[in-house]
Amino acid sequence: MLEEKTIEWVSEGDFGYCLTVDQTLIPYEYKKVKINSTEGVYNSIKTMIVRGAPAIGIMGAHGCSIAAYELKNEDNFIEKLYKKFDYINSSRPTAVNLSWAIKSQIEVVEKNKDKTPLIIYDELVKNAVKLENEDIIINKKIGDFGASLVPKGAGILTHCNAGALATVGYGTALGVIRSAFKNDKTIKVFADETRPRGQGAKITTYELLRDKIPTTLITDGMCSYFMKKGMIDFVVTGADRIASNGDSANKIGTSTIAIAARYYNIPFYIAAPKSTIDMSIKSGDDIVIELRDENEVKIVNGKPICPMEVNVINPSFDVTDNGLIKGIITEYGVFRPDELKDVFS
Amino acid sequence: MLEEKTIEWVSEGDFGYCLTVDQTLIPYEYKKVKINSTEGVYNSIKTMIVRGAPAIGIMGAHGCSIAAYELKNEDNFIEKLYKKFDYINSSRPTAVNLSWAIKSQIEVVEKNKDKTPLIIYDELVKNAVKLENEDIIINKKIGDFGASLVPKGAGILTHCNAGALATVGYGTALGVIRSAFKNDKTIKVFADETRPRGQGAKITTYELLRDKIPTTLITDGMCSYFMKKGMIDFVVTGADRIASNGDSANKIGTSTIAIAARYYNIPFYIAAPKSTIDMSIKSGDDIVIELRDENEVKIVNGKPICPMEVNVINPSFDVTDNGLIKGIITEYGVFRPDELKDVFS
Repeated sequence: MLEEKTIEWVSEGDFGYCLTVDQTLIPYEYKKVKINSTEGVYNSIKTMIVRGAPAIGIMGAHGCSIAAYELKNEDNFIEKLYKKFDYINSSRPTAVNLSWAIKSQIEVVEKNKDKTPLIIYDELVKNAVKLENEDIIINKKIGDFGASLVPKGAGILTHCNAGALATVGYGTALGVIRSAFKNDKTIKVFADETRPRGQGAKITTYELLRDKIPTTLITDGMCSYFMKKGMIDFVVTGADRIASNGDSANKIGTSTIAIAARYYNIPFYIAAPKSTIDMSIKSGDDIVIELRDENEVKIVNGKPICPMEVNVINPSFDVTDNGLIKGIITEYGVFRPDELKDVFS
Repeated sequence: MLEEKTIEWVSEGDFGYCLTVDQTLIPYEYKKVKINSTEGVYNSIKTMIVRGAPAIGIMGAHGCSIAAYELKNEDNFIEKLYKKFDYINSSRPTAVNLSWAIKSQIEVVEKNKDKTPLIIYDELVKNAVKLENEDIIINKKIGDFGASLVPKGAGILTHCNAGALATVGYGTALGVIRSAFKNDKTIKVFADETRPRGQGAKITTYELLRDKIPTTLITDGMCSYFMKKGMIDFVVTGADRIASNGDSANKIGTSTIAIAARYYNIPFYIAAPKSTIDMSIKSGDDIVIELRDENEVKIVNGKPICPMEVNVINPSFDVTDNGLIKGIITEYGVFRPDELKDVFS
């Protein structure tokens, strides 16, 4: 397992920086990069050096600290600080964890509004490091709750990467798989490639191979083939934003496998921390879906896979209907979509 | 439109050869290659220079002629000929059109068993050229029957390539789209990328761009996103083998989109000639699914997309349950899966 944190704050004298694995290089290279400016934070999220809803939340929290340090000698400190918070928040729209982390940092600022910028900076660092440390604890709880649902010897399908690299460590959906494997060495994982960016092929297989968990890579269209053959007993993915009715946005393609799972009566679960649940929205219709560059679809390994003049639409996420979700695995337990309102309001 | 045949027999003196588009080069290059040996026929099918159930049927028929010419001076001509027929038939297992074409050539041999090898060769060429010419006529009929089902201004999803390049010309699923576009310039096509080999991204978009039919390339997991948005009204794909109960094998991923179409109440059709219907088998369970090299999944544009040591299973086809298929569009009309037995027995 990746026992070290994949994203963490490093203090250096009176300032500091965020050290994070450059996920665009996985599986070819495991390399950490220093992020020490607000712009660096924005770009690291936008270009997916850091990706995965919980991980970008933590990066956003650290970004708020960095922003405060950058502005420590400025007039109208708070006003300018909130502008930088907005800038960081605009890097990617779909994952709620980013705005959740920034909201948590705004609370810190509001509580310390009359203090000096450097004290506010210190408080922001403290809060961000607290969120960072809590993330792994949360994921281990999610993992253990989820593992109790996995049948003995199950074939488990997952999509995209909701692993150690999508979080500070351990992972959400892969946390469930890690905990299940601890209990039962006979489970087998199927990892969807997850076009266009291939996070399943690149990152999930990389993580699971490191942990020696038996893993088969399949293309995104293959799920129904293996479901029909009875080789998949359990499906678990992460989420980027869960509406109060349980509709869940996750990486494009998730909804398609949830529909296939329903057709074959295979339980489909979402594994995500409370911070991914957005009680302020009624349903998935209110979730903004990020549209990304069409070259993510058109170009693979530096070369076109299609005529370059063809039109492409590249939504980065889709919304899985609450009715397709058997349960949402959180650090507080496993809940049906219709139970979220009672538990988290 | 590709008005020329994408596969055809060319007579040259007393012998001849098969001229076919090298589909592995599309969309980068449109180049024809000569196939003039049994081994060349086998390899062209195996390596997918020629692909698409109807096209490999025609290539197989021409291969039988070539085999006869190669053996014209041999003792035990018929016995050796049938061995070569078996060899050609073993190039790919799933598409029934190949064994259908070879069966048709066996009938020619049986009728002319007492004639000289060169006369048998001539008869085989005649029959193969007849099948070749009929293919386009059949596809235009399929296209016109199918077009009558397409709603005005429809968004049409297709998977893989069942186009001019998968046949001798015009195409089956793309024949339906071509005929629909003749009637209604407001239709819009969504082409699935079709991993692992990307026939949708490479070949379908290439064909539809040539015909100026508005086309959007999407990845295989995206279908449910566009279905949910109401942008897809009609789904049509080809098939490689249709069992007598209507279960249909087609490119891997087809079954997944058929399930999604059912969830969103969108009609899903198969477009295929009678020669794709295998009345000798009861259901899809009897269809042999070809497993192909795992590097088709692992390597794109010459480089890995995943850790090379990960396990991969690469089924080339899946079977769509008859209950998911609204109709099978043939040259004889459109039939429900349960009608095939009455119509084609």
